[in-house]
Amino acid sequence: MLKFVSLLLALSCCQGLHHNNIDDYVEAEPVFQASKYGSLWPLPQKVQISEVSFKLSSASFRIVDAKASSAGPSCSLLQSAYRSFENEYAVNRWWFLTDELTVNQPVAVLKAPTVWGALHGRIYSIYFHCQIISYFPFSKSINATIINDFPRFQHRGILLDSSRHFLPIKVILSNLETMAMNKINVFHWHIVDEQSFPYLSRTFPQLSEQGAYHPYTHVYTPADVKMVIEFARLRGIRVVPEFDTPGHTQSWGKGQKDLLTPCYSGSKPSGSFGPVNPILNTTYDFMAKFFTEISTVFPDGYIHLGGDEVDFTCWKSNPDIQKFMEQQHFGEDYSKLESFYIQKLLDIVASTKKGYLVWQEVFDNGVKLKPDTVVHVWIGGRSDKEMSNVTAAGYTTILSAPWYLDYISYGQDWQKYYKVEPLNFEGTDEQKKLVIGGEACLWGEYVDATNLTPRLWPRASAVAERLWSAKNVTDIDDAFNRLSLHRCRMVERGIPAEPLFSSYCLHEYKGV
Amino acid sequence: MLKFVSLLLALSCCQGLHHNNIDDYVEAEPVFQASKYGSLWPLPQKVQISEVSFKLSSASFRIVDAKASSAGPSCSLLQSAYRSFENEYAVNRWWFLTDELTVNQPVAVLKAPTVWGALHGRIYSIYFHCQIISYFPFSKSINATIINDFPRFQHRGILLDSSRHFLPIKVILSNLETMAMNKINVFHWHIVDEQSFPYLSRTFPQLSEQGAYHPYTHVYTPADVKMVIEFARLRGIRVVPEFDTPGHTQSWGKGQKDLLTPCYSGSKPSGSFGPVNPILNTTYDFMAKFFTEISTVFPDGYIHLGGDEVDFTCWKSNPDIQKFMEQQHFGEDYSKLESFYIQKLLDIVASTKKGYLVWQEVFDNGVKLKPDTVVHVWIGGRSDKEMSNVTAAGYTTILSAPWYLDYISYGQDWQKYYKVEPLNFEGTDEQKKLVIGGEACLWGEYVDATNLTPRLWPRASAVAERLWSAKNVTDIDDAFNRLSLHRCRMVERGIPAEPLFSSYCLHEYKGV
Repeated sequence: MLKFVSLLLALSCCQGLHHNNIDDYVEAEPVFQASKYGSLWPLPQKVQISEVSFKLSSASFRIVDAKASSAGPSCSLLQSAYRSFENEYAVNRWWFLTDELTVNQPVAVLKAPTVWGALHGRIYSIYFHCQIISYFPFSKSINATIINDFPRFQHRGILLDSSRHFLPIKVILSNLETMAMNKINVFHWHIVDEQSFPYLSRTFPQLSEQGAYHPYTHVYTPADVKMVIEFARLRGIRVVPEFDTPGHTQSWGKGQKDLLTPCYSGSKPSGSFGPVNPILNTTYDFMAKFFTEISTVFPDGYIHLGGDEVDFTCWKSNPDIQKFMEQQHFGEDYSKLESFYIQKLLDIVASTKKGYLVWQEVFDNGVKLKPDTVVHVWIGGRSDKEMSNVTAAGYTTILSAPWYLDYISYGQDWQKYYKVEPLNFEGTDEQKKLVIGGEACLWGEYVDATNLTPRLWPRASAVAERLWSAKNVTDIDDAFNRLSLHRCRMVERGIPAEPLFSSYCLHEYKGV
Repeated sequence: MLKFVSLLLALSCCQGLHHNNIDDYVEAEPVFQASKYGSLWPLPQKVQISEVSFKLSSASFRIVDAKASSAGPSCSLLQSAYRSFENEYAVNRWWFLTDELTVNQPVAVLKAPTVWGALHGRIYSIYFHCQIISYFPFSKSINATIINDFPRFQHRGILLDSSRHFLPIKVILSNLETMAMNKINVFHWHIVDEQSFPYLSRTFPQLSEQGAYHPYTHVYTPADVKMVIEFARLRGIRVVPEFDTPGHTQSWGKGQKDLLTPCYSGSKPSGSFGPVNPILNTTYDFMAKFFTEISTVFPDGYIHLGGDEVDFTCWKSNPDIQKFMEQQHFGEDYSKLESFYIQKLLDIVASTKKGYLVWQEVFDNGVKLKPDTVVHVWIGGRSDKEMSNVTAAGYTTILSAPWYLDYISYGQDWQKYYKVEPLNFEGTDEQKKLVIGGEACLWGEYVDATNLTPRLWPRASAVAERLWSAKNVTDIDDAFNRLSLHRCRMVERGIPAEPLFSSYCLHEYKGV
């Protein structure tokens, strides 16, 4: 988990942040209003803007470690971040002083208790940079400013689905970059599902050979996965993979014989298959080997094990399953069979020393969970009730129910996401503390590389601010003004983030 | 207007159409089913697929004019089209025989009565090409096929809005290319509106200097406009510009003093402005000069004059307008004042020898129109009633009401657009003949370069087939199968057309 970030900044800035300066002959105005916080997004916990103003020069830019820094030149992660920062703004020069904040010249000091904090501060300072001098480059003065910042919730995630549609690596990387710009720190990679199995397993290569949309072009090789993880790490983002069972597994069955339950039509197999077959030892042998691999490939402490939407129809049709139900005294309650499977799976995964997340049904069905299990609440309607129940039972939880971004509608639906208050449920303070954050989910039925990025941004930015900023940051008009600029900043960095409303960016998107 | 296209084709094909061939070791299958018409979109009027099958070689590709062609080497439009075709598929070679169709070798003959027909045939043959050999390149045989084709409706348009958001030229050109792929033949360029005036007028340059979002970066220069028109012409697409008055004109007022009506608050001007001021002679002097320029810049025979959504509040508040209403004996009926303005505007535009299109309100308000006026029906709810009324009055009409593509919703809304039957209203055969087509409208409040293309395609393709293919082409499952392939073809040509549903393309979109 990322630790708190504490920033202390007084930034210089310069026109050069914008790739092409526009003649300032005509002072164009954005259609939205100016926020006193400019384009800061997500809004920091504390911003103090003084009346002391600096003139800015077009000096260029450099980062140096403070003398007192305990994570200086030897920290490859920070050095790499500095390099990428400097490359991005190669024409600029910007001095970090090595001691206390000096307010009478254009400098900035960034203090952070951890490497991750400094990393986030780095990303942060870019925004700050652009914000304080205002979005438009012909503003050439800056007020001395002190920012103290840390996230309200530690788990700020985005789920992308690479099964309904394969997402080329380039799309994933570019969205990781954008997640970092929004201080999202968890990439929940819903990597496989019914429709396709693009994960190339070293242990079971036939899974993607048979289960991917295409065995060569529509797979994530070990090198691809490694690249995603390292790219994310350098931006302070955890990669939490999801391998959802026992439902959502049609694609697994293509490459792994006997893994899925044969469905019956009357007394004969119908030829179709249902969820993972929970009554065979071979199933658990497979899962043990498979998750041993997964626990090695993905370094994060957690794996998402799914467990949602298990359809019992096929299990009910199968005479061997029926017999097993009798032997186990499960009666007609197939959720007991589901729990039987999940329990064994959780034990397997626990033996790999990983923690796990599960969708809410696993909790609802009464499966015995390790105390550090994270329950993922996704079902809409009365998710506040579910949050109450999960936390009352003492489990850590994350919220996604109000943030299904694949559901689109006309107009400014980001406001709906923004207005969510994750702790708005009945419960004690202790219960509220168990809510460690949430995730925006972009399921892939209608989303692929062609439309993912504009559909995700800036709608997910609304979720990002809700999870980062203080509870009382709820001014929707101010959010509109800041977010309009923040989205233009994303556009200028090559991210096709869609507009909030009629307006323009100084530099429009150049792609198509 | 484009004339009917008649095609007679028996095409060779070759793997090389796909930029990268995939090893055909594993025969991947698309998630959708195969249509017997493959990926043909829009479906031709008549397709006869014989059982005679050809083996295909990887021969490359060339186009030659038939000896008997009356529009051969001297027709620069066709020669240019050939060149772009050959460039696109430079690795291929494809022989056009110079006389009758030869069915026992891989050749194609394309016959068309007009240059436009041949041009559309060219575009067409690319699809056909890909279709007949099936989408997947490892299919290496082709059945001899005869196609006879022509469009059901002559006006098949798409409206793009460059006022709510400025659309960089690159985005417009790339979408013109895509329109051609879908046999759309009218680009309705809603170029200016309340929010901004990006059209750089030679006669009144202050209109965009003051009214554009930015006077240098967010304007269409005369060279830009010329480029759009020529790019469209080479693809058989008319460019019909819209300059909407007297409403929707806030941006006009910034650069043209006294053009808009000053609104009053009590007995004093409030400082805000309403629609074009219809009581001043200077207004009509301006319009005469302005539309004289427009009629020269845009070569198409038609100009769209708008005339929709005129808000009378400001007119009502203004004492000079009130006096004028009395003098004209208009009573309290401000639609009479609107008609007064429009009538004078139509006379001005008619004197430039252009025809015009107007939004339906102009007809509804009883303005006297030239007999060749096209009435554009856009208001939802009872647009069938409006179609009845407009055609009963003897006016030509086009339909947009069911095709407002800016309204988005979750799921496969292309089906809703596809199921529209434009002639489904009460009226005689004579009335039905007055419906010359329709337009898909993508208004720009929530659309700019970041999301326009995936939002437009393939949703507008559904409209394109409805306007091109025979009335009885209504099989939604077959449409799904063909359109899934057609959208992959767009993706492979670099167009980020969004997916219809869970599935994949052999070559996914490479951009972000």
